Amino acid sequence: MREVMAALAPYAGNAIVVGITGSPGVGKSTTTNALVAELRSGGRRVGVLAVDPSSPFSGGALLGDRVRMSDHATDRGVFIRSMASRGHLGGLAWTTPQALRVLDAAGFDVVVIETVGVGQSEVEIAALADTTVVLLAPGMGDGIQAAKAGILEIGDLYVINKADREGADAVRRDLRGMLALADRREGEWRPPILKTVAQTGTGLAEVVAAIDEHHDWLVRTGELARRRTRRAREEIEAIALDTLRARWGEVGTSAELDTLAAAVALGESDPYAAADKLLRS
Amino acid sequence: MREVMAALAPYAGNAIVVGITGSPGVGKSTTTNALVAELRSGGRRVGVLAVDPSSPFSGGALLGDRVRMSDHATDRGVFIRSMASRGHLGGLAWTTPQALRVLDAAGFDVVVIETVGVGQSEVEIAALADTTVVLLAPGMGDGIQAAKAGILEIGDLYVINKADREGADAVRRDLRGMLALADRREGEWRPPILKTVAQTGTGLAEVVAAIDEHHDWLVRTGELARRRTRRAREEIEAIALDTLRARWGEVGTSAELDTLAAAVALGESDPYAAADKLLRS
Repeated sequence: MREVMAALAPYAGNAIVVGITGSPGVGKSTTTNALVAELRSGGRRVGVLAVDPSSPFSGGALLGDRVRMSDHATDRGVFIRSMASRGHLGGLAWTTPQALRVLDAAGFDVVVIETVGVGQSEVEIAALADTTVVLLAPGMGDGIQAAKAGILEIGDLYVINKADREGADAVRRDLRGMLALADRREGEWRPPILKTVAQTGTGLAEVVAAIDEHHDWLVRTGELARRRTRRAREEIEAIALDTLRARWGEVGTSAELDTLAAAVALGESDPYAAADKLLRS
Repeated sequence: MREVMAALAPYAGNAIVVGITGSPGVGKSTTTNALVAELRSGGRRVGVLAVDPSSPFSGGALLGDRVRMSDHATDRGVFIRSMASRGHLGGLAWTTPQALRVLDAAGFDVVVIETVGVGQSEVEIAALADTTVVLLAPGMGDGIQAAKAGILEIGDLYVINKADREGADAVRRDLRGMLALADRREGEWRPPILKTVAQTGTGLAEVVAAIDEHHDWLVRTGELARRRTRRAREEIEAIALDTLRARWGEVGTSAELDTLAAAVALGESDPYAAADKLLRS
């Protein structure tokens, strides 16, 4: 992996990374599917990483084996893989960036990261993506689900899916009201609210246009470089911590760590002093 | 905290650490409450740490403020605090051992760690506790809930609560059948299955007796020292990793990390090489 990443480094950095998140039931997979179709119709190559934070499986595997969204299964311009994040140190922070870099270096124009908006993962996806799309749908609770879990802070783009259903306008109104409360400075990006019916592909052209517009803004303002530097920083930290963990598991260090641990267990030392010794060695 | 832990080290190691875990609805709080009452009636001082892995709050706070189980609120021989684990590096692995050490050094005879058996937390509690009590109840799903989430591997003691309800014997039978499948060597601990009605305190004396019996076994076989050394090792690792993270946040190192991250973002370096540089510095 180390060698692969080193070899890929010069080729990465060209793909637009789009994160899609939202509560279960808003139609994330359908929307991702429709988004892929729309991007393909424009001739762009698309990679999809479906991150399932509830799955404890698929280890450090870069390439999962569950292929979804069979619409695109035979399209060589589309690459779809699902990944698990749970159980990893730092969750999304580590394996997903690697998969991202591979797809990016392989020449995919857009990489879509789809994740269920539960707990930490939606914040993590926002840290990973250039453009975060928050998906909502009418009838998913009273009025606005956006209030929960800080969804209002992470969206670069809000999409109300299932917009042909009753209540879509109410969701839009509520969302607009809440976004208006956010204190945005001059020149800052103002997240648009779009409507889609993913099942029929309605509104997806507008979503792609808004993603491109946001990307232009990111490039123009230098925000893209800042976001990507921040992302790289987190990735470096996660790898460094993992490297250390691995080192502590090696025979010599592991024996030393056992000695330190035995001293702590016996009350002859305390864990802070032991941690200092470990770090010095 | 560092100084406190160093000062406390020589005084810790005397408390029996009991972990209580189980699915929501089996009566964990009621059982903990009844267990505390039973231990108090024997004159033992009891500390309770209620760990809520779903709460993102209470930061690194050693002492939370939510006091529960009001039965014991005025008893100076009982100390009860709730703690959050989510959002910490390593979850339970770090703050709970510290609180544990404080209570241990303060002379509590038994420290009970209560946690909801969801995801990782039940495995983590088993790593922390000397004796892990897995709680079940009839009517919580078909037959046996034990099958899920590796509960069969972590219990030193199984308690079927609400044993006055229909289905308690079926749960016991199923559980016994599944435990019989485990391949235990000669001299290994065989987890007993007990029945309680925590609401009325029925069966709690037997639970306390079984905890004490398991503790004697741990001491006799040297397993207690092994478990505590393992626990100390994990704690040392978690503190060391956190120390590094903090160091990386300091001005000088942070600037260096930013430079490395910018190089990675630009494709001039890869995250593995950058992580190596970070670790060398």
